[in-house]
Amino acid sequence: MPDQHEQTPLDRPQGDPFDLSAGDPFGPHNLPYGVFSLPTPDADPAPGAPGPSPGSGPSPAPGSGSSSGAVDGRRVGVRLGDHVLDAGAVAAALGSPYVSLLARPTLNPLLAAGRTAWSDVRRALTAWVTVPAYRETVRPLLHPLSEVTLHLPFDVADYVDFYASEHHARNVGQIFRPDAEDSLTPNWKHLPIGYHGRSGTVVVSGTDIVRPRGQRKAPTDPAPVFGPSVKLDIEAEVGFVVGAPSERGTPVGLGEFREHVFGLCLLNDWSARDVQAWEYVPLGPFLGKSFATSVSAWITPLDALEGARVSPPERTHPLLPYLDDSPEASGEPGGHEPDGYDLRISVAINGQVVSEPPFATMYWTAAQQLAHMTVNGASLRTGDLYGSGTVSGPRPDQRGSLLELTWNGRDPLPLDDGPRTFLADKDEVTLTAWAPGPDGTRVGLGEVRGRVVGGDA
Amino acid sequence: MPDQHEQTPLDRPQGDPFDLSAGDPFGPHNLPYGVFSLPTPDADPAPGAPGPSPGSGPSPAPGSGSSSGAVDGRRVGVRLGDHVLDAGAVAAALGSPYVSLLARPTLNPLLAAGRTAWSDVRRALTAWVTVPAYRETVRPLLHPLSEVTLHLPFDVADYVDFYASEHHARNVGQIFRPDAEDSLTPNWKHLPIGYHGRSGTVVVSGTDIVRPRGQRKAPTDPAPVFGPSVKLDIEAEVGFVVGAPSERGTPVGLGEFREHVFGLCLLNDWSARDVQAWEYVPLGPFLGKSFATSVSAWITPLDALEGARVSPPERTHPLLPYLDDSPEASGEPGGHEPDGYDLRISVAINGQVVSEPPFATMYWTAAQQLAHMTVNGASLRTGDLYGSGTVSGPRPDQRGSLLELTWNGRDPLPLDDGPRTFLADKDEVTLTAWAPGPDGTRVGLGEVRGRVVGGDA
Repeated sequence: MPDQHEQTPLDRPQGDPFDLSAGDPFGPHNLPYGVFSLPTPDADPAPGAPGPSPGSGPSPAPGSGSSSGAVDGRRVGVRLGDHVLDAGAVAAALGSPYVSLLARPTLNPLLAAGRTAWSDVRRALTAWVTVPAYRETVRPLLHPLSEVTLHLPFDVADYVDFYASEHHARNVGQIFRPDAEDSLTPNWKHLPIGYHGRSGTVVVSGTDIVRPRGQRKAPTDPAPVFGPSVKLDIEAEVGFVVGAPSERGTPVGLGEFREHVFGLCLLNDWSARDVQAWEYVPLGPFLGKSFATSVSAWITPLDALEGARVSPPERTHPLLPYLDDSPEASGEPGGHEPDGYDLRISVAINGQVVSEPPFATMYWTAAQQLAHMTVNGASLRTGDLYGSGTVSGPRPDQRGSLLELTWNGRDPLPLDDGPRTFLADKDEVTLTAWAPGPDGTRVGLGEVRGRVVGGDA
Repeated sequence: MPDQHEQTPLDRPQGDPFDLSAGDPFGPHNLPYGVFSLPTPDADPAPGAPGPSPGSGPSPAPGSGSSSGAVDGRRVGVRLGDHVLDAGAVAAALGSPYVSLLARPTLNPLLAAGRTAWSDVRRALTAWVTVPAYRETVRPLLHPLSEVTLHLPFDVADYVDFYASEHHARNVGQIFRPDAEDSLTPNWKHLPIGYHGRSGTVVVSGTDIVRPRGQRKAPTDPAPVFGPSVKLDIEAEVGFVVGAPSERGTPVGLGEFREHVFGLCLLNDWSARDVQAWEYVPLGPFLGKSFATSVSAWITPLDALEGARVSPPERTHPLLPYLDDSPEASGEPGGHEPDGYDLRISVAINGQVVSEPPFATMYWTAAQQLAHMTVNGASLRTGDLYGSGTVSGPRPDQRGSLLELTWNGRDPLPLDDGPRTFLADKDEVTLTAWAPGPDGTRVGLGEVRGRVVGGDA
């Protein structure tokens, strides 16, 4: 088990955002998008005091007009080092036409604008934070991260979760079906297995997670019992955010992935294993997952991750044409560019790293997942979010869930503050990640953080 | 098999909407809500010609500002006989404060307003269509149904589908697990099994359904094959529409059902049985269902269905307190009012009735489903939709799916235009229903209609 402690960005001194070291994972080669608000004048927190906690109430109702103007002062921000750029304000100050995409309370208008607009806006932003002529305009619109509140960056349309790590699927199969001939189900190598989750409970990093209650029943129990979950778990995942929609009845091909998907984020698909085990046959996970899914406050555009593209693992089974991403199948000159991403994830509990799952080992790519999700004619909407599934590598210290790390509680993890089988109340889970960027740089992904709050309170 | 042909409402002459017979299932005791638009002046269809077909493109993206004003001339309508009342225009003409809820392009603002507002608005509407003093104001704002286009009446937030008919679950169990000791899974009598579906492909009645393609694999096939589904099926269901949201972390109790749920509609959860059979282990249905779910254009408020409330079937297993709806468990004086609904559904293919599923036989009520869905702390949003699951009664001619009606294709249905195992291209499926209303009247539910379009076109 790796034991180094991650230094969180807020621990670092906040220097001049125009003078970041080349090693800063949130330098001008990254520029992830989020939504932030400044403290209201009434609140006026003391300098250095934590900002207001992220909203945990119900999301604005669809159709209630929440997107037509400012919501609680929310605005699109772009991260630069330990600062947030008020992107809409810069666009307005410079007379940029992108003000209509950036001076908004969610990322959805930008997401909906499509690939050409995404590239154009990113080019403009890069200029604004690197060309000296813009410096005096931009400087007052950069706010220290410690002084802003970060919000859920987009309105989630549908949320789908996949199951794309072979190592994870085999571990789960061995744990739950130890007598099965094959730890994978017969369909696993033929299609990326997925299911729909609850989009209304997708929350932004920093939101407390109330321990869910529910029914559970051990095989030896005569009847189900009810109470707070005793097997609350992490699932370390990567989430993909759909920008450009598609028409119902028209599948999105493998080669169209980058036309539709805007970017990615870290995602923790909190799971109550005891609830899930009792409920999930025959229609899949429901209450074991639907209480909360946490995502980063920052969406990293795919454009920032071109240097992180890698080939997925070798396919052991022939794939149907709509999923076949082998170089010879692409028909593109020079072959299909690889659709895997080399993202190095860390999972920490109370600051102690317990696992380092390597995203590059995922069997199914996000492009294959998108092609599969739409091959039946299902349409995409702006704001659709899909999770990769738990990321687990081949080594024991690369497993992305406590279910696997403790082998369903059999082998407790010896943390500094005591052993863990599953999560205890007050545990804070943090996912961080980086990817190789241009010229030896690192591209940082926004962290996903969440603290477990007792359900009995 | 019942063989009477249903007379669809549009077959009837369009008389004076103020002079409906007491037997009209859409009289002033009903008043369901929908969203409609009038033909644009440019379109100008000849009188009696069908209006434009319902939009089948992608829904407006969340956050794209679609709800902040008129969308394609959409407006809230209330059905009276074979006419639609422009409810917002009446409210405006009469200076009613409800104009802010009714002069909108979706039902969401009305849904979000909550139980007291729902009752107040309904009282006002009842007066407007029954008190002679309003007649001259109201008459020009009533449009014949044949001259309007009906739209998806609300922006769907999350969509959940349940599995609440014991007869359906037992039939499915016997078909797919003929050797099992019990046709029900061990959890079935302890909790209402459900899963999340795709809200982005919920479409309004009248929308064509493109036959989905996908992978299927018979047990004897060496590998999966790809193509249009050869087992496209109906699921006759009732959908419940959530109005008032709830906070994350706070379950909604059995007794709070009517504070949160606004009304109901008919729902056809189209299912590709071959796709579903190959994909659904271990994470449940995905592409076998996600291509389309059709709902009525009309949402019937629960207030119109007070006369249809009935007790659900006797519970054969003790229930945990949060699901226990027995009279003695309620703690309410006089006992808990029953949460079942006596809805008489008809399923027709190309106008020929093939089944009459009785909703009163459902084991789990919509109130229990809501309590279960939120017991883990999952929040509700305005526009959440949940389906009852396929409605099947105890008799063979009361089964709500072709899977059951033909016993997975073994016993084809002898329709007038030839035998059916599953749906053929060009088949039009229509669900209709009524419920007992006050004083011997009937409350009609809006029909759900959909035609299968070949996927090879």
